[in-house]
Amino acid sequence: MAIRYASSECAALLEELRARGPLVQCITNAVVANFTANVLLAVGAAPAMVDIPEEAGQFASVASGVLINLGTPREEQRTAMVEAVQAAHAAGTPWVLDPVAIGSLTVRTQLAHQLAAQSPAIIRGNGSEILALAGVGAGGRGVDSTEDPSSAIDAARELAASSGSAVAVSGAVDLLVGADGHRVGVANGDALLTRVTGGGCALGAVMAAFASLTDDALLAATAATGVYTLAAEQAAVQAQGPGSFAVEFLDRLAGITPDDVIRTLNLRPVDVSGRTR
Amino acid sequence: MAIRYASSECAALLEELRARGPLVQCITNAVVANFTANVLLAVGAAPAMVDIPEEAGQFASVASGVLINLGTPREEQRTAMVEAVQAAHAAGTPWVLDPVAIGSLTVRTQLAHQLAAQSPAIIRGNGSEILALAGVGAGGRGVDSTEDPSSAIDAARELAASSGSAVAVSGAVDLLVGADGHRVGVANGDALLTRVTGGGCALGAVMAAFASLTDDALLAATAATGVYTLAAEQAAVQAQGPGSFAVEFLDRLAGITPDDVIRTLNLRPVDVSGRTR
Amino acid sequence: MAIRYASSECAALLEELRARGPLVQCITNAVVANFTANVLLAVGAAPAMVDIPEEAGQFASVASGVLINLGTPREEQRTAMVEAVQAAHAAGTPWVLDPVAIGSLTVRTQLAHQLAAQSPAIIRGNGSEILALAGVGAGGRGVDSTEDPSSAIDAARELAASSGSAVAVSGAVDLLVGADGHRVGVANGDALLTRVTGGGCALGAVMAAFASLTDDALLAATAATGVYTLAAEQAAVQAQGPGSFAVEFLDRLAGITPDDVIRTLNLRPVDVSGRTR
Repeated sequence: MAIRYASSECAALLEELRARGPLVQCITNAVVANFTANVLLAVGAAPAMVDIPEEAGQFASVASGVLINLGTPREEQRTAMVEAVQAAHAAGTPWVLDPVAIGSLTVRTQLAHQLAAQSPAIIRGNGSEILALAGVGAGGRGVDSTEDPSSAIDAARELAASSGSAVAVSGAVDLLVGADGHRVGVANGDALLTRVTGGGCALGAVMAAFASLTDDALLAATAATGVYTLAAEQAAVQAQGPGSFAVEFLDRLAGITPDDVIRTLNLRPVDVSGRTR
Repeated sequence: MAIRYASSECAALLEELRARGPLVQCITNAVVANFTANVLLAVGAAPAMVDIPEEAGQFASVASGVLINLGTPREEQRTAMVEAVQAAHAAGTPWVLDPVAIGSLTVRTQLAHQLAAQSPAIIRGNGSEILALAGVGAGGRGVDSTEDPSSAIDAARELAASSGSAVAVSGAVDLLVGADGHRVGVANGDALLTRVTGGGCALGAVMAAFASLTDDALLAATAATGVYTLAAEQAAVQAQGPGSFAVEFLDRLAGITPDDVIRTLNLRPVDVSGRTR
Repeated sequence: MAIRYASSECAALLEELRARGPLVQCITNAVVANFTANVLLAVGAAPAMVDIPEEAGQFASVASGVLINLGTPREEQRTAMVEAVQAAHAAGTPWVLDPVAIGSLTVRTQLAHQLAAQSPAIIRGNGSEILALAGVGAGGRGVDSTEDPSSAIDAARELAASSGSAVAVSGAVDLLVGADGHRVGVANGDALLTRVTGGGCALGAVMAAFASLTDDALLAATAATGVYTLAAEQAAVQAQGPGSFAVEFLDRLAGITPDDVIRTLNLRPVDVSGRTR
């Protein structure tokens, strides 16, 4: 099965993101809020971390896109998440669910299942998280996945079909599955991205930015993953370690061009067992 | 109208800040707390993020200055803010109000009005926020201003007069207005500062540090803005993008000298319509 | 009295840390959570900031080590801390207590005394904090110590004996005391570490990582302090200021080798009055 998208479509979305500067509301964990906001600013979007009850719903109805990340879900934030998702749903604002570390941690796992039923445009996670959200497997060790992305391909397809969302499974090659079962692999990136906290979480925010630009959630997830991992690949060339990598990464997110995307994005077909060709 | 201050007065305050190392309590948003603390450490102050009820008031009575930033005002933090402002007021500790994103977000807007009545030394915000706090306009889109600073000059003058505070309106040229209506423009800085989250918020903390050194709140706001935007200007020379800019900026805040301030600070007269000459 | 440990033992623990990648749960303050996670990732451990009630205890029973840092102890986080410490104690998970800024701030001071009774493997703080936890002295000014580390040596010995913990007092030379009274000085590091927020707090997390590798808590604290301050020393060579220092520091934590530790770790005997020789 050929891939439905071309690199040029991803490049065009990057150009549109820069022109529009979408306003992305992030209800995210305290560890990565700063990095996430800086990633959004770098790529050309506008972050707004409005995450308290009453205001979260007010803002979700005017935001371009919303990220819900379950990394450190305080009680007040959980209330704000439910409120924001309802308002986003009502207003037609696309939103992204990142079910961080669900599985054996009971509070977030229950919340993730509740939220997943509210039509997220995109669900993103590592293999363990996607398995847990699909009701298979017991989850990973904290934020680390104990699963290869391809082992979650069936779970991702089931989850995409049942939720109507695009599902992204992070890994050395990122696997993306549409609600209709179409699959894409993104074979860019660098392992240093896993040595910076928020390396995965901030991608969720970038997905929310791209989801505001098109009704095709799988294309949005693919373009976001492509731009993000290409910037990582560029950054790794100069980096001396995880500290300088994070700095370079923000510089490259700001500097990456649609032409870079056309020339170097590596989209791959993915077979039914999750292997890329 | 000539400007009341000379660059040399700002330079002298920087020297005094380095000698005294004022202790600045920050009750600020979760996104920028880390950057704000690093900015204070870099410039020569000592940060303390004491933001829980009971302790917030205890600390405000011994701190040199206090910053209240409404970026992510959780319930517990709102209680701590009210407590800290009361204690600061009682102890004569100067405090700075940053009414982040007020306007259409109801929780923070009500709180901002309540706090503004408690004699902040300085109120700082973008044009939209100052208009909203003065009771004019509906606020911006999240943390971004939809207004040119000069369009908020009347609101800033009214707010300064009614609150007895110096009011700072951020922009390409920062506009500052004293309680007596005196106006100063600071024409330094670089647009990269708007590509780093907390670029505005951390300035509020630096203002609290400078406000601890003089009873002239407008001078404190001017010196803080000058030192801060000059460091940004220096940093932009080397920066390759927003990531390396943030790193350079901290280095420059630590390295900027009183002599740099005397030589390169660009203070400007501001006419009644908010235009700098 | 000679020192009980050799640099080679610290080097061996670093090698073991890299091989095992211990999972460190951090219940820490909002200001330094990001930096702390990046420090753990850089050195070779896996961070997990699980800090909400119900989940905190669930996670502490499977984590390799736990850090409890009292920097911004919200109510929900205080509940999570008590829960995590009980679960860690029950499961035999080593945990580290960092009683940030205790003394005159009543909420955290009471909590610190309560937690210190639950057998932390390591207690770390500056001189003021250790004096306050031992019941001597009124604490410092916020996170800054007003005391030289050596002035806290008696308090550290009493605290170590009464709690059964290794006690680490930070300073230009870090002083470490075992539950049996054995003392070690670590004379590495650089003053720039005090110009980066979380410079001390993140060390607590690294101590938790090392404590998961050995039952000898004093050795774990010594190795963690040694690796951490050596990386700081290396970073300071290239740094232009606190911004670039923080970046270099993460690179060096990732790059430091067991051989670096053997060659340059500077362990010193400490006499009864806290002076290093």
